[in-house]
Amino acid sequence: MKDLPFHISALHAAYARGASPVEVIEEAFRRIEEAGDPGIFLHLVDPETAKAAAAALPPFDPVAMPLWGVPFAAKDNIDAAGCPTTCACPASVYEPEADAFVVAALKAAGAILVGKTNLDQFATGLVGVRSPYPIPKNAVDPAIVPGGSSSGSAVAVARGLVSFSLGTDTAGSGRVPAALNNIVGLKPSLGALSATGMVPACRTLDTISIFALTVGDAWAAFRAAAVFDPSDAYARPAVAPALAATPPSFKVGVPSAATREFFGDAVQEAAFDASLAELKALGGEIVELDFQPFHDIAKLLYEGPWVGERWAATEAIIRDRPEEMHPVTRAIIGKAEAFSAADAFKGQYALQALKRIAQPMVDAVDLMAVPTIPTFYSVADLEADPVAPNSNLGTYTNFVNLMDLCGLAVPLAPRADGRPGSVTLLAKAGRDAALAALGETLHARAGVRLGATGWMAPRGAERAPAALPDEIPLAAVGAHMSGLPLNHELTRLGARFLQATTTSADYRLYALPGGRPKRPGMVRAKDGAAIAVEVWAVPMAQFGAFIAGVPAPLGIGTVTLADGSAVKGFLCEAAGLEGAEDVTAHGGWRAYLDAGTSDAA
Amino acid sequence: MKDLPFHISALHAAYARGASPVEVIEEAFRRIEEAGDPGIFLHLVDPETAKAAAAALPPFDPVAMPLWGVPFAAKDNIDAAGCPTTCACPASVYEPEADAFVVAALKAAGAILVGKTNLDQFATGLVGVRSPYPIPKNAVDPAIVPGGSSSGSAVAVARGLVSFSLGTDTAGSGRVPAALNNIVGLKPSLGALSATGMVPACRTLDTISIFALTVGDAWAAFRAAAVFDPSDAYARPAVAPALAATPPSFKVGVPSAATREFFGDAVQEAAFDASLAELKALGGEIVELDFQPFHDIAKLLYEGPWVGERWAATEAIIRDRPEEMHPVTRAIIGKAEAFSAADAFKGQYALQALKRIAQPMVDAVDLMAVPTIPTFYSVADLEADPVAPNSNLGTYTNFVNLMDLCGLAVPLAPRADGRPGSVTLLAKAGRDAALAALGETLHARAGVRLGATGWMAPRGAERAPAALPDEIPLAAVGAHMSGLPLNHELTRLGARFLQATTTSADYRLYALPGGRPKRPGMVRAKDGAAIAVEVWAVPMAQFGAFIAGVPAPLGIGTVTLADGSAVKGFLCEAAGLEGAEDVTAHGGWRAYLDAGTSDAA
Repeated sequence: MKDLPFHISALHAAYARGASPVEVIEEAFRRIEEAGDPGIFLHLVDPETAKAAAAALPPFDPVAMPLWGVPFAAKDNIDAAGCPTTCACPASVYEPEADAFVVAALKAAGAILVGKTNLDQFATGLVGVRSPYPIPKNAVDPAIVPGGSSSGSAVAVARGLVSFSLGTDTAGSGRVPAALNNIVGLKPSLGALSATGMVPACRTLDTISIFALTVGDAWAAFRAAAVFDPSDAYARPAVAPALAATPPSFKVGVPSAATREFFGDAVQEAAFDASLAELKALGGEIVELDFQPFHDIAKLLYEGPWVGERWAATEAIIRDRPEEMHPVTRAIIGKAEAFSAADAFKGQYALQALKRIAQPMVDAVDLMAVPTIPTFYSVADLEADPVAPNSNLGTYTNFVNLMDLCGLAVPLAPRADGRPGSVTLLAKAGRDAALAALGETLHARAGVRLGATGWMAPRGAERAPAALPDEIPLAAVGAHMSGLPLNHELTRLGARFLQATTTSADYRLYALPGGRPKRPGMVRAKDGAAIAVEVWAVPMAQFGAFIAGVPAPLGIGTVTLADGSAVKGFLCEAAGLEGAEDVTAHGGWRAYLDAGTSDAA
Repeated sequence: MKDLPFHISALHAAYARGASPVEVIEEAFRRIEEAGDPGIFLHLVDPETAKAAAAALPPFDPVAMPLWGVPFAAKDNIDAAGCPTTCACPASVYEPEADAFVVAALKAAGAILVGKTNLDQFATGLVGVRSPYPIPKNAVDPAIVPGGSSSGSAVAVARGLVSFSLGTDTAGSGRVPAALNNIVGLKPSLGALSATGMVPACRTLDTISIFALTVGDAWAAFRAAAVFDPSDAYARPAVAPALAATPPSFKVGVPSAATREFFGDAVQEAAFDASLAELKALGGEIVELDFQPFHDIAKLLYEGPWVGERWAATEAIIRDRPEEMHPVTRAIIGKAEAFSAADAFKGQYALQALKRIAQPMVDAVDLMAVPTIPTFYSVADLEADPVAPNSNLGTYTNFVNLMDLCGLAVPLAPRADGRPGSVTLLAKAGRDAALAALGETLHARAGVRLGATGWMAPRGAERAPAALPDEIPLAAVGAHMSGLPLNHELTRLGARFLQATTTSADYRLYALPGGRPKRPGMVRAKDGAAIAVEVWAVPMAQFGAFIAGVPAPLGIGTVTLADGSAVKGFLCEAAGLEGAEDVTAHGGWRAYLDAGTSDAA
């Protein structure tokens, strides 16, 4: 048990062999004890309570309960019944009556909470040293800051004390600590995870986030947690499918050479270049973007009126008992007093104007890739200047929630000096799954140890080629197949090839009379056969333009494939088969054409 | 010329007969002179300049230039080159260098600007009496307020001085004056009309609006003006097709009996009931809504931090020279000083929470109908209390822009006491055309005189149902037809009704076995009949999302209509007809369902 990696696949393999979740929870508490860092947890669940929860799990079933027996921790601005919520501010402690919505969803999926973790007070900071409690030590190198605000949650995962943890992310608190501790940080699309039972920082920009040792584990926790909560006014339905394969080619927007910022850290810049090389190797086409508008948006968050939201969230303390706040936190949130309602709206106008410039760049690529952090700072750096290094750490994170992007921080090969490598993938809200699929591949290729544990990543699951949520898989039967005359109608709409397969043995294929190019007509029939098809993923927004050009007697219906799945596909009206030649025996249109060509030769 | 109605169809008929636009512009200036109300215009264009613009028009071509030779006026918070912009505040006058984007677009369509109109100072008010200039007299009854803030623009149209005019609408300024002056007030979806060259009131909530004597004229001006302006950060691409027919049935949300508010005006309440009877006669199904959340949102605008936007827009005056503002305006905008940035965000949280309650009610209906105003107030009422009557007038308008709805105020039959009747139709952003189509029909049925002119409405144009280039006409055969269970799948994608017709006599209709709702399957067949269908225009970008949800054995093929044209439509795989009942004899799915009900009775 002592050597058991806590990533989910190792745990579930152990459970499948008969290990007990009670033992795993005991081991988690033993590791926490052994870690000897009083800065990580602000409150531990009573071990007997946690073990009782483990003992009360139904029989092991990782399909029904994908987080069965998986220990996790939650940042201490997220409620868990039975634990005080502190936000790292002793003056604001309260005892919640219920689990936060997300904590309850994770427990329902079989996860076991072991404790509540330290943070930059009121989730205000990216460094992890703004807490009146002991500061958690960075898991990789105690000299550098642990990162924040979700400091304890990141360190707990990186040290292998829990399988995953919840953070929160407003300006980068779910990503910066991931880079600093060599772990995965999944920053979901805003609204995908309920904020019910979470103490807000900036309500319009907050999200709960997930730290894990692997992308697969973070995704498993996200899928379990991403339940729509109608009681959260900012909740939006999440898109959280099973992960699919990575497309063979994709466009990646990156900061241009002129608009990169590493604060003089050439090692970090080289590491970022290496991560772009990895993306290229996976089929990424690198598109350099003028990043100035993104930097301007980041600055807006840091220097603008959004601090008014932090004031609104902490009003009872900062107005009446400011001396009980951390001095740095108090100074930062106190700036809100200088901003009027008019200023708040002016900030929105400025953001809207910058979005007009930045959004088209986001729209023109499939995803973006940025360094998670521009450089590293030590605890000593922060003692010397508690503000500027914090601000610099947000260079590539602050603009993300204002732009309504989702993000994923992925560990990569260590830098030349041994410090952890990390890249953050970004995309439009709702495309979390596309980032996770690519991030998992990137992480696997990097072949790095997980967090500070020394464990190697498990082999990633084989991903079947699948369409994205905003694509429609379409079975092409005839001239739209690759290399045939109408294939360009698919490719010019941005459709991408998924697989060559056949239908179930329920179809008949006809060569329709007339026409150039010659067209097939396929119909479902009792005495059918398997017909060769190609499945293409067509962007949903382009499907209308495509279908508008499909002439009678052809249409788009539902086609059953050999594996039993159903996709959209070309079918023919039965009334259109008059005078058509039954070519089912060829098994497919390409075979029929090839045979015809041979005849003609 | 003296008796020529200034609605566009009369003008264009006169032009077609050889009338000169120079004469029409001369006549407009003569009417302005004759009207003898110095409160309507704050600045007139030099008549020679206006006549020169008319003389410079290319040969009459109302298709190429739909506003050819049409005189219009613009509220004096909208720039026109050569005219000062005052916002009814002499201290803030400036000389714009260019036309506002919308003014330029209207001129490009052939319209001729004759002047700039009075308003409640800085567009703050719904009454029209908050101006340091002479107050424009209500066109219908000088004892009642003209309505505001777009007072002069409404009166100018109602008195037949111009064909249409531009107002602006933040809280109802494009609708309330329409009701008070017996004219049409089109309040577009936010962002459809560029705000470039318009002095903002609340930038996140403002839109330019259009007053006209007829819905058709308002729509013609809207179509000409609704050009996307990339330089306006809040602009959104508009949906402004030619008007189509009104669907045969639709759901209309209205305030429930318990949540109506008429401030004791039983005559107004009776008039509203009469307008609902008209909607029912046109196929409207009345759905009573708990209107309290809408009232709460309205109150939020009136009492909440959005006044900070007005402060931001008038800062140079109210901060440095407050004594130069109208005292009522100064008192209202001055309230912004009490609101902090934190308050501004708290207001957004409150709005978001209320939207969560109100939005599902909006989503569950095709449109909403509310009284444009709850009652009438006299100029004397406002002298006695300059604030409360103004607030009451916004009962049914204040929530609209906060909810991102479009609106159309339509004149209806006069109340029992002879005052103008008016109903406002509301719908989700982007559905302006659906409101205009219905509003035109309502107005025509009312058979009322136009404004205060004594002119009768021209016969509405016959609406040829047609899809736009970015729409796909789709023949719905079954449950997607209006009033049937799946119609919402079309309407929520922004599809609009084009026509009810039949197929060519080449199809057979079947009731498929199983399923709830029951589904038809239509196939082309030699011994076919004409089957009743509804043709809907589906936005091309949404067609994919729609088709993704169509289950086997149904698909989308090509259907030939009675007039020989071909559109996309629902067809059924022949293999899916096993066990289906042939219901061709009913002639359509609705008739089959109705017969089924009768059988069961």
